[in-house]
Amino acid sequence: MPETLPTRADVLEARARIGDAVVRTPMLRTSIEGREVWLKAEVLQHTGSFKVRGALNFMASLDAEARARGVVAYSSGNHAQGVAAAAARFGIPATIVMPDDAPPIKMRNTKRSGATVVPYDRASGDREAIAAGIAEESGAVVVPPYDHPWIIAGQGSVGLEIVEDLIANEVIEATVVVPASGGGLAAGIALAVEVEDLEVAVLAAEPAGYDDHRRSLEAGERIRVDSTEPSICDALLQPQPGEITFAINRDRLAGAVVASDEEVLGAMRFAFDEVKLVVEPGGAVGLAALLAGRVPGAGPVVVVLSGGNVDPAVMARAIEARR
Amino acid sequence: MPETLPTRADVLEARARIGDAVVRTPMLRTSIEGREVWLKAEVLQHTGSFKVRGALNFMASLDAEARARGVVAYSSGNHAQGVAAAAARFGIPATIVMPDDAPPIKMRNTKRSGATVVPYDRASGDREAIAAGIAEESGAVVVPPYDHPWIIAGQGSVGLEIVEDLIANEVIEATVVVPASGGGLAAGIALAVEVEDLEVAVLAAEPAGYDDHRRSLEAGERIRVDSTEPSICDALLQPQPGEITFAINRDRLAGAVVASDEEVLGAMRFAFDEVKLVVEPGGAVGLAALLAGRVPGAGPVVVVLSGGNVDPAVMARAIEARR
Repeated sequence: MPETLPTRADVLEARARIGDAVVRTPMLRTSIEGREVWLKAEVLQHTGSFKVRGALNFMASLDAEARARGVVAYSSGNHAQGVAAAAARFGIPATIVMPDDAPPIKMRNTKRSGATVVPYDRASGDREAIAAGIAEESGAVVVPPYDHPWIIAGQGSVGLEIVEDLIANEVIEATVVVPASGGGLAAGIALAVEVEDLEVAVLAAEPAGYDDHRRSLEAGERIRVDSTEPSICDALLQPQPGEITFAINRDRLAGAVVASDEEVLGAMRFAFDEVKLVVEPGGAVGLAALLAGRVPGAGPVVVVLSGGNVDPAVMARAIEARR
Repeated sequence: MPETLPTRADVLEARARIGDAVVRTPMLRTSIEGREVWLKAEVLQHTGSFKVRGALNFMASLDAEARARGVVAYSSGNHAQGVAAAAARFGIPATIVMPDDAPPIKMRNTKRSGATVVPYDRASGDREAIAAGIAEESGAVVVPPYDHPWIIAGQGSVGLEIVEDLIANEVIEATVVVPASGGGLAAGIALAVEVEDLEVAVLAAEPAGYDDHRRSLEAGERIRVDSTEPSICDALLQPQPGEITFAINRDRLAGAVVASDEEVLGAMRFAFDEVKLVVEPGGAVGLAALLAGRVPGAGPVVVVLSGGNVDPAVMARAIEARR
């Protein structure tokens, strides 16, 4: 744990650092059962997810000498693509340790950015150890997926954009629903929305059976949930909140909501029909929880659609799904 | 024909009139074979296509008394939805004459906006006559799909946004590719991009076999192309450019490009994979022509993705399509 947790000021600095290397994604207005809903379309971000924000801020924060030695990361998907794309932007080498059953689209895109992919067997391999070994050998820096102040601050830039768009639309009270795996995006957004003139409640959204944030928030301490249930939300299978992310989220999140696989497919179908966006299962879990009526209150809701890297077969299932 | 054709000033006025009733859609950057490409995502517009822009400007331009009597339109889809949504915004009744084989999604959305749908048989019915009869009986005003100065000026607001975004990104020379059926969107954009500091070539894009703009531009006069070939581009089957639209486009368009059904499906797949957008066949024809290498030059290209109202079965075909 760092001595001090990141703050909103770190998020502001992160945004200044990553600047126009990221897309300022639109917040699209829709309505669900009469309720005002804003969809923060991070699927339109470079690499198809918010992850490139944290990766860029992390690399921009390294000193030039360390950065030049390159980076290494372990990820089944969106973080891999984010790190690969950020490294390409800085012109430094990247090595990504990926499970050999990662969604093909995520593996293909990671390679396309010029990263070296090191596959491992999810059942028998230890990806953190593999990454650490590569780092030791090459001098590369490990880019953690969520539990690092620079990563959290970078993801928080999503929250700054939400704040600006809420103010521009004269919304002064809102609930923001954020998909959570390690909790980095939720933590960054929770910091970013701490603004005097706004009253924002941040909720984590998780796949049913992977509700470690919900249980941890209720318990006031990090709870590990080892699920053996399958889930289509490949991006959200972390069994436990991060240490730093939870230290931020514990006092700031208003709670957590869950959604089933079927509800997630229905939310993907909704996004296809109503707003013409491709959303991956993990990116649609907040929308699914909202559609299922699990987001308390009746006021405006911002739903973060955090990623859109879905394989065609899963998308085909979603667009035939019932809403 | 009106005595004077609409000009860029009319487009600017239209934009002021429709204001924030439309989404200022993002222009998303990508790259195709090393070429700088910007995708103007009109699929994110209210109703899922640009058509609401012209409909809003048309209704805003009517005097209040005429407007109160309501509107009537004939359309197989996007214009229907645009007129229905614009009428709902003005709180006036709308009647839409639609072929009974229109894509279910377009029919459903039209009804949802509160419009009355009058179905007709495409083979035996005359939709213009049906609409004229309804107008005569009810006093409602017919909202033409493209061949009217107010419609053209409204659609042109897309072009103003393109100009602003090109300038913001320091692009001073570009090709803009615009799907064309009656040619209203192309005409409006052609007017909007007439700016001193920019050099913009506008190309129409059409389904193969429905290349009436291409032939008309080559001939210098409106050519009718009665195709019996099937096409998946249900939004682009007009056999002939409009009279007013062609009077504008004849001197302003740099030409026209075409794409086959298979190429269109590949472009829809590209949009799904690369930018997480749902694009309908007619909305993807410009992207398809670009991917097929038919857009001349090597400089920046803006491709208008004009609509995203695609039925699930067609989308399922697209995401299994070869790129």
